[in-house]
Amino acid sequence: MSATAPSPVPHLTTALTGPLHRLERELLARQTAIESWFRAQWRRSPAPFYASVDLRNSGYKVAPVDTNLFPAGFNNLNPAFESLSIQALQQAVERLGSPVDRIVIVPESHTRNVYYLENLAVLEGLLERAGFAVRLGSLSPDLEEETVIELPSGADVRLAPLARRGRRVTVGDFDPDFVLLNNDLSGGTPPILEDLEQILRPATRLGWANRLKSVHFSFYQGVAKEFAALIGIDPWFIDPMFRNCGAIDFMKREGQSCLERNVEELLDAVTRKYAEYDVQCRPFVMVKADAGTYGMGVMTAHSAEEVMELNRKQRTKMSTTKEGQKVTKVIIQEGVYTHETWGAGNAVAEPVVYMIDHNVVGGFYRVHTGRSSSENLNAPGMRFEPLAFEECCISPDPDQGPDAHSNRFYTYGVISRLALLAAARESLSVT
Amino acid sequence: MSATAPSPVPHLTTALTGPLHRLERELLARQTAIESWFRAQWRRSPAPFYASVDLRNSGYKVAPVDTNLFPAGFNNLNPAFESLSIQALQQAVERLGSPVDRIVIVPESHTRNVYYLENLAVLEGLLERAGFAVRLGSLSPDLEEETVIELPSGADVRLAPLARRGRRVTVGDFDPDFVLLNNDLSGGTPPILEDLEQILRPATRLGWANRLKSVHFSFYQGVAKEFAALIGIDPWFIDPMFRNCGAIDFMKREGQSCLERNVEELLDAVTRKYAEYDVQCRPFVMVKADAGTYGMGVMTAHSAEEVMELNRKQRTKMSTTKEGQKVTKVIIQEGVYTHETWGAGNAVAEPVVYMIDHNVVGGFYRVHTGRSSSENLNAPGMRFEPLAFEECCISPDPDQGPDAHSNRFYTYGVISRLALLAAARESLSVT
Repeated sequence: MSATAPSPVPHLTTALTGPLHRLERELLARQTAIESWFRAQWRRSPAPFYASVDLRNSGYKVAPVDTNLFPAGFNNLNPAFESLSIQALQQAVERLGSPVDRIVIVPESHTRNVYYLENLAVLEGLLERAGFAVRLGSLSPDLEEETVIELPSGADVRLAPLARRGRRVTVGDFDPDFVLLNNDLSGGTPPILEDLEQILRPATRLGWANRLKSVHFSFYQGVAKEFAALIGIDPWFIDPMFRNCGAIDFMKREGQSCLERNVEELLDAVTRKYAEYDVQCRPFVMVKADAGTYGMGVMTAHSAEEVMELNRKQRTKMSTTKEGQKVTKVIIQEGVYTHETWGAGNAVAEPVVYMIDHNVVGGFYRVHTGRSSSENLNAPGMRFEPLAFEECCISPDPDQGPDAHSNRFYTYGVISRLALLAAARESLSVT
Repeated sequence: MSATAPSPVPHLTTALTGPLHRLERELLARQTAIESWFRAQWRRSPAPFYASVDLRNSGYKVAPVDTNLFPAGFNNLNPAFESLSIQALQQAVERLGSPVDRIVIVPESHTRNVYYLENLAVLEGLLERAGFAVRLGSLSPDLEEETVIELPSGADVRLAPLARRGRRVTVGDFDPDFVLLNNDLSGGTPPILEDLEQILRPATRLGWANRLKSVHFSFYQGVAKEFAALIGIDPWFIDPMFRNCGAIDFMKREGQSCLERNVEELLDAVTRKYAEYDVQCRPFVMVKADAGTYGMGVMTAHSAEEVMELNRKQRTKMSTTKEGQKVTKVIIQEGVYTHETWGAGNAVAEPVVYMIDHNVVGGFYRVHTGRSSSENLNAPGMRFEPLAFEECCISPDPDQGPDAHSNRFYTYGVISRLALLAAARESLSVT
């Protein structure tokens, strides 16, 4: 996907590239075996319809830190990759196994978020250009009639209320063959989406009301272990360690001891790994709402004390996530420094990779000028820099050195697909 | 597939754009119905593994004039589309229905054609980057051992003799799961390829020794008729009329009267169509070897006299095609002017569209400075100009006028896929 345009691929800090170089070399050398392994995995566990994966690249390890099965942000992808997304969408719809001509996208209900609406306009456009008729069917109780919203980009989105007719949902007289969720169902599955005879993806059971990050990362741990055995590396180079606590109340300070103990033990485990691989950084952990999303309910801790000494404001912040859902379960995840930076200001950056079915179709860097390399970048003030892959993730060129951009992106494509595979196995396990 | 690079999309002569505008408008207006129709067709008649289609665009009609099921010329595609081809190859191999890790490409035997070898290098590279192990297994009796040929582009190709072991073919100790023919089998199916237990595509029965252009265009006629009914147009706007003669000997002047009569009748039919649509051009026909390829055994005729008065040199030229195969059957096809030109010199140009499975993955213009708009451009002196689709063929934007480049390419993508569908039906009919 090159090559005539200048490539705005970000600068990658090279201070800590030793083990990563080794990882990249291993991935390149075993490319055919890796792709063969992925092919066998997808035959066994079909990939989700679509997904985005947040990665962190610290130089000493590359790991997924979040896997979103209801990806927004399609507006942040490089338009140069459009036909790749279109082709992948055609393939993904074909795989549904039943003829599809009409699609309803069920979006998030926060219709005032212009960025989210731009995402919807792009996603709708991609599906239309893939040859489908598409409508947006909103769950929002505030939306009483069809509403057209004009967007800063010049696009517009036409939102209409989703209606139920027997075991089908419709938008006006538009009766879809396929319902595509772009709403992560943080508040649970609304009755209107239950027991439909139409094809619906992703399955409602994969909504955030049912999913736990700790369950996803358990599946990821299994995937990473198998994959690491295949290429002969320590799984730690691709897998963030984690623990979880099941009964937390930040406001009432309940479950505090579980949290503190796990933070301490996890920091110890990271410290040992840093010593083993001579990593000269201060270990840290991320404490996250186990069912959380949108970057809400996330904090960084370098010691158990930091978790003990949260002030009231910090507790309030940690206690609720999207749509006011209360946080009772948390995952404590090994913090992975992001040693990638973007631009002259050296703003901290982390890659986000997009997949449709099992195809890598693009990505961008989430960039945050006001955050450090050990903080959550999914926070107000972040911005997005579309990736112009020199060659897209799926096409390494073994004749270039492992430092070449194309190869770094191959690595990202592999790690993202490992997270996708974890989600695929997770999907099969949840009923 | 835009848009940061300046788009070298060729100038399209606009003198005769009336009916084409109408055709393009119809295609755009009925896009969802068209794509839905194609989806239903591919479910019924799976697309060939890959194909290229030569189109002619006269302004008053857009029609395929040749469909190649063993496409060369991958080196002429724009590298910017690589990941589209890679993704489509992954999908096409997945559809073979049986796990594939190792692929042998069986190339043409003319190893001195540097352009063909560059094509092989690109095709092999695409398959490797799609995650397969690939070898080139030659049928050439002159090739006794593995030979590496360095190419002007800097690439090299490693040719080795194809060997038979029981019901399998191998290249050295490389035992492929899938044998991909890039050899059109003009001389018939060699015994080494018969009755293999490995997957082989395209089927040997689709080699040029078994195929006739007239059979392909009979299937195309059926496809064009159905499609024209779908969008409500005269099928003539997308279908070149043709006739055929089955027992010709150019050297002995046998079958001459069949040829002359058909040339005359076809010219009359074209004349009537030109009158019906007020086309101000002189009708002509192409006389082609019915089993021919490589642009050999092709002539233009504006009258029956031109066919009667062939001199000895012209007869010799018409009497044999690739690898010295004797021409005994000819197709007489309505000539379609190409009113597309390339560059400042207004060189005559015709688009060639490439497909993998049913995906349009790119194309180029075949450009010939020394030929006129009514001549075969597949001739020595031709050159290739890769297309940088502003948007690739499969993604029209209804908000742009029908003159916009993206939409013209959508039209080309539709007509090419109609030819592909004809080939798919042809494949199912031949056993």
